[in-house]
Order: sequence, then C-alpha cells, then structure tokens
Amino acid sequence: MSEEQFPEVQGGGSLILAWQIKNKRVLVVGGGEVAAGRILNVLNADAKVTVVSPRDGLNPEVAYRIEKGQVDYVDRKFEPSDLDNVDMVLTAVDDPEASSQIWKLCKERRIAANIADVPPECDFYFGSVHRDGPLQVMVSTNGKGPRLANIVRRSIATNLADNVGEAIEKVGKLRQMLRKIAPEPEEGPKRMAWMIKVSDAYSLEDLCEMTEEDMEALLKFYALDKVPRFGCLKAMKNEAFDGSFDGSFGFFVGWG
Amino acid sequence: MSEEQFPEVQGGGSLILAWQIKNKRVLVVGGGEVAAGRILNVLNADAKVTVVSPRDGLNPEVAYRIEKGQVDYVDRKFEPSDLDNVDMVLTAVDDPEASSQIWKLCKERRIAANIADVPPECDFYFGSVHRDGPLQVMVSTNGKGPRLANIVRRSIATNLADNVGEAIEKVGKLRQMLRKIAPEPEEGPKRMAWMIKVSDAYSLEDLCEMTEEDMEALLKFYALDKVPRFGCLKAMKNEAFDGSFDGSFGFFVGWG
Repeated sequence: MSEEQFPEVQGGGSLILAWQIKNKRVLVVGGGEVAAGRILNVLNADAKVTVVSPRDGLNPEVAYRIEKGQVDYVDRKFEPSDLDNVDMVLTAVDDPEASSQIWKLCKERRIAANIADVPPECDFYFGSVHRDGPLQVMVSTNGKGPRLANIVRRSIATNLADNVGEAIEKVGKLRQMLRKIAPEPEEGPKRMAWMIKVSDAYSLEDLCEMTEEDMEALLKFYALDKVPRFGCLKAMKNEAFDGSFDGSFGFFVGWG
Repeated sequence: MSEEQFPEVQGGGSLILAWQIKNKRVLVVGGGEVAAGRILNVLNADAKVTVVSPRDGLNPEVAYRIEKGQVDYVDRKFEPSDLDNVDMVLTAVDDPEASSQIWKLCKERRIAANIADVPPECDFYFGSVHRDGPLQVMVSTNGKGPRLANIVRRSIATNLADNVGEAIEKVGKLRQMLRKIAPEPEEGPKRMAWMIKVSDAYSLEDLCEMTEEDMEALLKFYALDKVPRFGCLKAMKNEAFDGSFDGSFGFFVGWG
C-alpha cells in the first residue's frame, strides 16, 4: 500500500460541525454585547434559550429579545442550579473567576461550554458565518486571524451566486417529494444516486426556476433513473409523459 | 425600541462550531469507507483516535492508518466499556440496532455522538470543508442538498485567493510576536484594535510578502497605535526607526 494512495493527515485544524440544538436548552450567562451575539447564534439554530444576568447589565439587544419573549430570562447572577437540564452553556461575563467556576461545573456535568475570551475553557469556538436560507458557510482561521475570517467571509458572500440559497431550497423540496413517491429505506442508495444526477445536471439558475409542476414532471424520470435536460423538462411540462420514451438523442443528461 | 434595530432571528440553521478535540479521545465504531472519512476529519483536528472494528471489515484506508500507527485499534465488535474515557463517538456500521444501542449509551453518559446516516441520532452533522493551512471553510445546506454543498465548496475554493491561507499564517505569527512585546492582559483591547488595523490596511498579497524582519519593523508602530503603508514599511526596513516620526503626509494608513 503506497502512502500516496490516501489523503495525508493535515493536523492543526478544528473539527467543524453543524451542532443540532433545535429545541435543546442553551444557558447564556451574561447580557452584554458578546452575549447578544451568542443569543442570536443559538436562536438561529432553533434552541430554547435562558439568559441569566442582572437586569442592569443588559445590552439593548438582549433586553429586546427578553421583552419579545424570544428567550427566557432570570434576573440575577449565575447559580449552579441554573445548569440543571441544560444542554449547552455560553458565558460572556467580565469575571474570570466566576467564568472559570462555571466551566468547572460544566465539565463535572459533561455539559458542552464556551467561556468567551478564555480559549482553554472552551469545548468549541464560534466562527464567522454567512447565511443564505438553508445555506451556511462558516469561516475559521483557527484563532490566527478573526478579522481576516470576516474579510474572507465577506469575499465568499460576494462571490456566491445570489440564488444559491434558493436553489438549495428547491433541491430540498425535490428530495422531500422523492421520499414521498419512493419511501422505502432500501431505495435510499437509488434515491441518493438520482438526486446526485439532478444536482450535477442542472445549473443553479435551472434549479431556482424549477416550479412544483416541473418537479412533478421530473420525478416521473426517477423510475428510469434518468434526468432530462432542463429545456426538455420545461418543454414537456404540458404534455403527458407516461414513463416511456423514444430514446431521442439529446433528451437525457449523461445518457449512455 | 424598534424591531428594525436588531438582527431578525432566522431559524432553521445549525449552530456551526469549531469543536476543539486536540488530544481528546474519539472512538470510531466501524472501519468502512464512511469511517475512513470520519477518521481523517478527526485526525486533521489532532484528536487521539481509537477504531473498533473486526479486521475483516476494514477498508484499505482505515487499515493503512492503523498500520501507520495514526490510530489505536481494537479488533472486535463494539463493547460498552469502549466508551470509558471517551470524549466523542462516531459510528459508521451497517447495523441500525447496534448503532441505536451505542447512541443510547452515549446519551446516558453524555458523550457527544454522531451515528452515520441516522440524523435523529446525531448531536452534530459533518459538512463539506475546504482547508488551506489555518483556514477552514465549512459549507452546510442543513441536510437539503449534500451534493450542492460540495458544488458550493468547490466554487468557494476556486474563488478564494491562492495565498489566503499563507496570509492568515502571517497574521497569526504577527499576533504571536505582538503578544511577546505587549503581554499584559490589560493590553488585550489595544492589541486587538491594532491587529484589526493591520488586517484592514494590508492586502492578502502584502500579508503574504511580510517577512519576520518586516514584522519586527511593523511592531515598532504598535506603541503609536499606527500602521504604516506597506510600501513605507518595506522601504524603511533597512533604516533605523526609533518610534518617533515626522508626521509626513501619506506615511500611515488611515492617519487622522
């Protein structure tokens, strides 16, 4: 076995993950500007959020989210019982000793935690995230240059097609419809292979243009494991298609 | 307080995180192709990896990593005691019942886990990651279109400047040197503000070109909280600079 055959290990990176905290309980200790950013991060991922902070330390954005009922609120300093039934802890308080204490309690209870500005007391770091509907792009410089991370994120956002979020939304919708017409678990690999064909065959513009009617027409080709050219799909929309075809040259993508 | 004042919550996303698993113990259950990908992911983040899988189920890449001593190896099926002292569990076995059992044990012990191909039994998902030295860019479509995630990742990689990883490396080096000459914790905000000035003032090309000598010259401007134009920095390299300056027009970036 030769070494060239397999990707070389490139240490020094982070394990970048899409953490699932929908309906999980996240405790945010602190109510300043950093806390405001953290709160938005976890609300965007559908977490249930509790903020613990004396009212006089609240930043206007945090106060606004409390007032609107977007987060639960406890008007006092942190107490260890705040950790009961909590899945993740984010602290952002100007009190290194209190922060360290919270970190230790989290580790005893095996709760994932991030103590702002104290890298060794973090199970994870946040990065600079670009969002476009279902698409998230996260840039990390692994602590080397947070400002450059923002510059890179903005440059990525500028270069990405405006419609990429919408195209992904459409593909998600098609995948959902496919699962309805071919729900069997054994079909998984066939479904996946066909979805790959669709993703590779159509441009982002094509995908964005796809209506629900187009998707229904397209799904008729799943049984054949084929994907018609987008122009053909659009043209046949109003014609009956019974799942047979005459093999016309150029009708299918990657035919062969 | 008006609603427009603060960013709107955009639910439906993931919490994208840079998980810190350097020197943490990750258990990988399974030794097939999916396991091979997972193993590379966590090795790139400097984790200590244990693979549990009967030898006859090993994919060549996994066998190679075992042979090279890149991972520890246990030649049998999973047993509950494998979870002792483990920080994260990744399973990739074709046995839904065994997988579910491992997931339950992980949740009892509060160990973060990902059961491949079983989204509800995952604390986190993996995404499509582009790597360039210290830079990592992760693309997630939140499960809507894994294939599109790869397409988006490749398009981002193509559009990013070739030297961006190197530029980030240089900024990280400069930050390190700055911490040596101004180590006091109270200097934190001043250090951060100056690093932001540097990051904003120089192009990626400038940053790449920066030698250690240039950095030493540049650091002399930290006390003044100024950043000279890159051309000036390069020109003055061989001249003595004593920390004073004559206020010449155009010498500093954003002077005023």
